[in-house]
Amino acid sequence: MVHFANRTKLMQASEIRESYKLMGIPGMISMASGSPDSDLFPVEDIIESIMSTFKYHASEALQYATTEGYLPLREKLVEKMKQTAKVECTTDNIILVSGSQQGLELSAKIFVNEGDYIACESPSYMGAFNAFCPYLPEYESIPTDDIGIIPEELDKVLARNEKVSMIYVIPNFQNPTGHTWSLERRRAFMDVIQKYNVPVIEDDPYGEIRYEGESLPSLKSMDTKGQIVYLGSFSKIMAPGFRVGWICAEPEIIEKFVFAKQGCDMQVTAFAPIILSEYMEAHDLNKHVKKICDSNKRKRDLMLNQMEENFPDTVKWFKPEGGLFIWVTLPEGINSKYVLDRCVENNVIFVTGKLFYPMNGPENTFRLNFSKMSEENIVEGIKRLGAILKDIVNNREIL
Amino acid sequence: MVHFANRTKLMQASEIRESYKLMGIPGMISMASGSPDSDLFPVEDIIESIMSTFKYHASEALQYATTEGYLPLREKLVEKMKQTAKVECTTDNIILVSGSQQGLELSAKIFVNEGDYIACESPSYMGAFNAFCPYLPEYESIPTDDIGIIPEELDKVLARNEKVSMIYVIPNFQNPTGHTWSLERRRAFMDVIQKYNVPVIEDDPYGEIRYEGESLPSLKSMDTKGQIVYLGSFSKIMAPGFRVGWICAEPEIIEKFVFAKQGCDMQVTAFAPIILSEYMEAHDLNKHVKKICDSNKRKRDLMLNQMEENFPDTVKWFKPEGGLFIWVTLPEGINSKYVLDRCVENNVIFVTGKLFYPMNGPENTFRLNFSKMSEENIVEGIKRLGAILKDIVNNREIL
Repeated sequence: MVHFANRTKLMQASEIRESYKLMGIPGMISMASGSPDSDLFPVEDIIESIMSTFKYHASEALQYATTEGYLPLREKLVEKMKQTAKVECTTDNIILVSGSQQGLELSAKIFVNEGDYIACESPSYMGAFNAFCPYLPEYESIPTDDIGIIPEELDKVLARNEKVSMIYVIPNFQNPTGHTWSLERRRAFMDVIQKYNVPVIEDDPYGEIRYEGESLPSLKSMDTKGQIVYLGSFSKIMAPGFRVGWICAEPEIIEKFVFAKQGCDMQVTAFAPIILSEYMEAHDLNKHVKKICDSNKRKRDLMLNQMEENFPDTVKWFKPEGGLFIWVTLPEGINSKYVLDRCVENNVIFVTGKLFYPMNGPENTFRLNFSKMSEENIVEGIKRLGAILKDIVNNREIL
Repeated sequence: MVHFANRTKLMQASEIRESYKLMGIPGMISMASGSPDSDLFPVEDIIESIMSTFKYHASEALQYATTEGYLPLREKLVEKMKQTAKVECTTDNIILVSGSQQGLELSAKIFVNEGDYIACESPSYMGAFNAFCPYLPEYESIPTDDIGIIPEELDKVLARNEKVSMIYVIPNFQNPTGHTWSLERRRAFMDVIQKYNVPVIEDDPYGEIRYEGESLPSLKSMDTKGQIVYLGSFSKIMAPGFRVGWICAEPEIIEKFVFAKQGCDMQVTAFAPIILSEYMEAHDLNKHVKKICDSNKRKRDLMLNQMEENFPDTVKWFKPEGGLFIWVTLPEGINSKYVLDRCVENNVIFVTGKLFYPMNGPENTFRLNFSKMSEENIVEGIKRLGAILKDIVNNREIL
């Protein structure tokens, strides 16, 4: 057998993506997904946009293109950044990437040397750890609470550890916790990071998927020193199958992303951004996002109600104002992996919380998704899960 | 300004992709491209395939998918590998990637430690060096001639240097030289590499773009030890805008590619492989490839004739049996960068040869593309270039 590089030993299958195989079992109710609701894809409008793409731009849609990406879409993203993230920028600040996942991989590639530290919330998006892993970073977990990262703690870490070369955060409806940073926290965070020359990756795939409360300004909108690298995505507001996200950053940083992306895959699929641009030309994307939010909100509320009714009192959870997930904490000493094993036997699955910690994390948490579920499955899934939790908690099977 | 990782200092814009900017100048004749002819894209048939994709598979076409890629397309690639590369395999041997460019990046990612050596032809595809660069390899250039890599020289290198962790080759219509390995060389190469546990990346984007002579078996078809990682691509036989290529390798290696690709971008654009699969279902891809070959052959022959007529006798070139490029060698002492500067003034461009060498290379070579050019521009471009070459060679402006 051939030899692999050392970094390859650290690479693992995402347990979530592997759970797709369990999802295929007939009767399985999956609360493990991170996907949006397929029923909400605007299929007819997308087909219309495809037709105009191939009617007016066929050659361009099928040929090599610039690495930065289709200019008319980048122009629309300039407008979008202004509207949703409160950021003033130009097309020189924007590069299209193959989903914001690629933005994560490219960020580690251009910012992180082997043995450098990445400071992040803990727990955080496990796919980010997969993206960063090949660059062999260490991690600094920054304490957080329900209203975000604790800036004083970050300050201590940055003052103590000069090898922190990147900060990774999800200020809106964080994956997996659902937490959203308060305005005060955002300001205090910016005050801290401006003392250091460390780039900050602001991952914002869920920002527009808000069900209540007021939309808050992005970190990028408060960025006076050009430190914030903002990652946006069409996956949750349109469809993940496009694999189109974008990075908004200083032109000097965008240039490095361009070089790095050229080596990776040259460009995003040529027709995907043209279709998105045609769609945004002909339709009101905000209206579509509102439709997604209305539907998701109903599902979130239903799931929260069902949890209230079916879960034992000692189980706690966070009510998110947006996003796709509910984060659950079991009484100390109860291992969510054990709960999951019992659930699989009863044809219901979720994602255990431990996977979201960059280093070691508690064993007693898990993440539930509501966006990809039918209302019927929410009711039945939470009923099954509630019964198992009651059984375990009441019998105090501690593992 | 934020700090970048050390590897970022080594990343450069591809000079070819940067030359796209020069291509935009009115009247500019570009022989610098690596693109196929946009006029040959089967636009009507692709639109038909898109319609059936969204009619029958809309949800799947827009949602997250498995990282390995759309199964029906992988099934068709199993058939294709048998037919065109003479390889017997199953879908477990195949993962879809975002163009074979991503196959290169992922190969370095899973096989190459910092400071390891990559053995390759010299010159070779410059985009591969961009893909490998972030993993900080060193290079061993293996001597080659018109019929391929010289196996005895490779053997010497592998025996001498234990840090060679990957071999990278393009046995068919090599980019940039157009050289194709003879059957004897392929066999002798396999005899050598089987003595070592080094993986070999067999990059084959041009294999089917053959104008004359007999198709030769791929290295993968002679692979008894599971060492060959074969990279295929739809870019030259269908359209680059899809960004769909594939890797064919042992399942144990494919598994590592899956992990690595998950971190990079999760999956290829979901609808691109479905469209390709629908196309291959409804149409004869081989027939389309034949159309491409017929058109390219006419252009190659025209360019070779024009070169014969217009270039000074001391300028030499290789007549390729397929692929997109003609490789030109100037008399010793004439720098092709100087020729290019003169050409830009006269609105004609090509790619200088030096860029294709992993380390230092001769200054007196360049690469011409014919596939992307109109016949009119081939005649006019070679006339202009010929006049400049005659002027330089005859006046012996040595730089």
